[in-house]
Amino acid sequence: MAYFRIEYYSNALHRSTSFEMLIPNDYRLDLPMQNASPIPKKPMGTLFLLHGYTGKAGNWVPEELAAKYNFAIVMPTAENSFYMNGAATGSAYQSMVGEELVDYVRRTCGLARSAADTGIAGMSMGGFGAVHLALAYPEVFGKAAGLSSAFVTRGIAGMKPGADNGMANYEYYRACFGDLDKVLESEGNPEWQVKQLKAAGKKLPDLYLCCGTEDFLIEPNRAMHRFLEEEGVPHEYHEGPGIHDMVFWTEYIQKIVRWMFE
Amino acid sequence: MAYFRIEYYSNALHRSTSFEMLIPNDYRLDLPMQNASPIPKKPMGTLFLLHGYTGKAGNWVPEELAAKYNFAIVMPTAENSFYMNGAATGSAYQSMVGEELVDYVRRTCGLARSAADTGIAGMSMGGFGAVHLALAYPEVFGKAAGLSSAFVTRGIAGMKPGADNGMANYEYYRACFGDLDKVLESEGNPEWQVKQLKAAGKKLPDLYLCCGTEDFLIEPNRAMHRFLEEEGVPHEYHEGPGIHDMVFWTEYIQKIVRWMFE
Amino acid sequence: MAYFRIEYYSNALHRSTSFEMLIPNDYRLDLPMQNASPIPKKPMGTLFLLHGYTGKAGNWVPEELAAKYNFAIVMPTAENSFYMNGAATGSAYQSMVGEELVDYVRRTCGLARSAADTGIAGMSMGGFGAVHLALAYPEVFGKAAGLSSAFVTRGIAGMKPGADNGMANYEYYRACFGDLDKVLESEGNPEWQVKQLKAAGKKLPDLYLCCGTEDFLIEPNRAMHRFLEEEGVPHEYHEGPGIHDMVFWTEYIQKIVRWMFE
Amino acid sequence: MAYFRIEYYSNALHRSTSFEMLIPNDYRLDLPMQNASPIPKKPMGTLFLLHGYTGKAGNWVPEELAAKYNFAIVMPTAENSFYMNGAATGSAYQSMVGEELVDYVRRTCGLARSAADTGIAGMSMGGFGAVHLALAYPEVFGKAAGLSSAFVTRGIAGMKPGADNGMANYEYYRACFGDLDKVLESEGNPEWQVKQLKAAGKKLPDLYLCCGTEDFLIEPNRAMHRFLEEEGVPHEYHEGPGIHDMVFWTEYIQKIVRWMFE
Repeated sequence: MAYFRIEYYSNALHRSTSFEMLIPNDYRLDLPMQNASPIPKKPMGTLFLLHGYTGKAGNWVPEELAAKYNFAIVMPTAENSFYMNGAATGSAYQSMVGEELVDYVRRTCGLARSAADTGIAGMSMGGFGAVHLALAYPEVFGKAAGLSSAFVTRGIAGMKPGADNGMANYEYYRACFGDLDKVLESEGNPEWQVKQLKAAGKKLPDLYLCCGTEDFLIEPNRAMHRFLEEEGVPHEYHEGPGIHDMVFWTEYIQKIVRWMFE
Repeated sequence: MAYFRIEYYSNALHRSTSFEMLIPNDYRLDLPMQNASPIPKKPMGTLFLLHGYTGKAGNWVPEELAAKYNFAIVMPTAENSFYMNGAATGSAYQSMVGEELVDYVRRTCGLARSAADTGIAGMSMGGFGAVHLALAYPEVFGKAAGLSSAFVTRGIAGMKPGADNGMANYEYYRACFGDLDKVLESEGNPEWQVKQLKAAGKKLPDLYLCCGTEDFLIEPNRAMHRFLEEEGVPHEYHEGPGIHDMVFWTEYIQKIVRWMFE
Repeated sequence: MAYFRIEYYSNALHRSTSFEMLIPNDYRLDLPMQNASPIPKKPMGTLFLLHGYTGKAGNWVPEELAAKYNFAIVMPTAENSFYMNGAATGSAYQSMVGEELVDYVRRTCGLARSAADTGIAGMSMGGFGAVHLALAYPEVFGKAAGLSSAFVTRGIAGMKPGADNGMANYEYYRACFGDLDKVLESEGNPEWQVKQLKAAGKKLPDLYLCCGTEDFLIEPNRAMHRFLEEEGVPHEYHEGPGIHDMVFWTEYIQKIVRWMFE
Repeated sequence: MAYFRIEYYSNALHRSTSFEMLIPNDYRLDLPMQNASPIPKKPMGTLFLLHGYTGKAGNWVPEELAAKYNFAIVMPTAENSFYMNGAATGSAYQSMVGEELVDYVRRTCGLARSAADTGIAGMSMGGFGAVHLALAYPEVFGKAAGLSSAFVTRGIAGMKPGADNGMANYEYYRACFGDLDKVLESEGNPEWQVKQLKAAGKKLPDLYLCCGTEDFLIEPNRAMHRFLEEEGVPHEYHEGPGIHDMVFWTEYIQKIVRWMFE
């Protein structure tokens, strides 16, 4: 499993940034099983794996499944951006991941260009990001999975200057999501994104949501599940024992990868 | 010259971040001159070296002088923050460099704790940052140098929503500097910082400003020079042939390091 | 948990090399439990964690215990050297880890200098290395743990030019261990090291050996256990279900860290 | 200029190793000149850039020319191996660079596969390596440049056990070059390589040699130049003021890159 750390100039961020990538293409000739078909016949798929709030490109990585199913894992660094395009110059994190980085890794490393071969998953803020980005770019991401997703939009709608919800303050959410009085009818609301796609008659990405029953984010995840059911959007939804931690995510990322690439 | 890349959790940024550091403490025993006094008798000094807008922790680094004068070089990554404390949660770049990182490298690596042994320098946005941070923390940084400094405060004062000055838009400057109608009387204005320190009877850091005569930022630098003269603030000011590029900075960082550590 | 990647000039190797280090000193102020005593009162201990044959500085790292017990984790990169001092110029891996790196991290990062606060552990070739280095430098490493240790000395003694044991060839072992006709009476034989320390009346490091019952290296580990019993050397020895893999090592490194630092 | 740090499993070395790579494919949309033709029409060329004895993958890198002439720069890490295939298991540095790494970067990053688009250059031990590897793989490397090359073969021929020439000892050279009594008629002798290629009627790579007149390696370089003239091998040979240092190499790498890619 080759490990890449790449620094490049991001036009979306107006600065250099870096990301990490794992590519299962350094075949060990001394391990016969891996050597069976060293050069896959078709382009390699890609999983974009998104970190959470306060997190970074990380190590909750399903390495063994990547080798088994022949896909690369791209781990962007998106600070605490919620993977949104902020209004300020150089805050286009949505474009950075969903357009720029997708294009960059495909043209640099010859990864598969079809949505069927491109998945996106994340946990907490990254779960929001995975769902949000797949709804923003359904032609890019064929499958999206949110683990313990931070579906915060309803909670911050109408937030006022000076307010703070314990996790972050008004200025922070405004920088990420724009006008908080209009956020429910904006790209910052995955429900709104779903309705827009449906109205336009576009194909939605396949969705997989999961959350631990003891997770403090269980209710927003149940609400999203109900919304998707009401809208008639087919999707996977799973609850299981667990809190908002790596134990739950490590277990479910295995299930999700199989769902995506098997 | 040992090279460190360090990832740590920044409380100022509410997330993991990384910085780079050079420490001249890996003495080659096969090079006799370097071996003369392998273990310096006093704690090592520190130069904080700040990147510019669109830049990153970089390689315009006076390595040989660091070994000669026995100081470490710390290169923070501050995105396009202007080294300011933004109002949004997790945007405290001023605190990140001037408090958190200073404390972290001193307690982790035993670097000298006196202002006399601690310098800060940067180019362009980093030149602004060096001057701004030294004025914000004069007890920390004994000497500060701005190369081709982006003294932008007067240019953005009173900027209106929707405006864009070619480099960045209103939302960007608002996120960095706060209320742009009040920026002239705020920490985002180095002139205001100087006046506050003088009014409080505090010692100012030693200052060194320089700029190329063909640099597009020459006028704001001349204005700062005049301001300091009018205020009776002793400082070094140098102009020389050159534009806004690495040729000028590579030349002047040598002079500046000698001025700081010789 | 701060992560360091450090490149430095190694006099032992006559070239630049790099290592990785984890230091639990970036306290999150938003997590109250961690914040209880942010600045420990005594110098931080150190665990040197050694990779195996074909391996590298790695990620089988007991991060949470490092924070709990206040020790840094240093992960050298030693190629396939068996942590021995080879005869060729620039092959002094034993000195590199046991002298140079110990000195470097202590003087650079202020880590505790006592053997009581300094442990060493490794798996497979790194298990051999941990035992070998602790016996070579008992004043440095107070406790050493070998997991599934590659006690290969008896197997390669008397190996002839042209031979290959499936893992490596004669030239390889000669480069690592020197004259293979004399290896049983040399520093490449931990049993010989034990006898030398006893003969000199020196204190041996505390030892912990473990191996999976299905591991292909179980017999050499049992042999070492018997040898230590016969020599009257107190030590921990544990077998458990498992093969030569990360599952076993991840389980036992937890036990070992508690044994070392609790 | 995107920067890659890549760790992969090397079958030639029987372990993980890393290398660095620069790829000029992160086009800045705000710099109009660079944006003229963001996606080159033909595959990108490659320069393999080899470090010297005691060195590492480095920073004497002609970045601007890489962007101008559209080639990637691959910087292997080869320890002090002289880029030779040693006899010990896991010492196949020649194969690692000239076969494995060439194949890896081409199939991973889509780089040009023709010898005309693939150059190799290095300084000191890396100069030896560049010439040696191009002669070993003339179908891979169309052009090779040695700067201040360490043509050491004649100096070590017949070296005896126990000897040391000030730079390294007998065991070191034996590990790199094999039987030192036979080294003049082996792949460790570039002159022998030239004769073999000529005898086989094979095309030689284009060669460029240069050395500073005050360099301690000037005589071996002059000897190689005379040898090539006597053999009727067309080649570039240049001397200039300078010693064995980065000043000379930084100047000549510019000339060499133009010679290779213009």
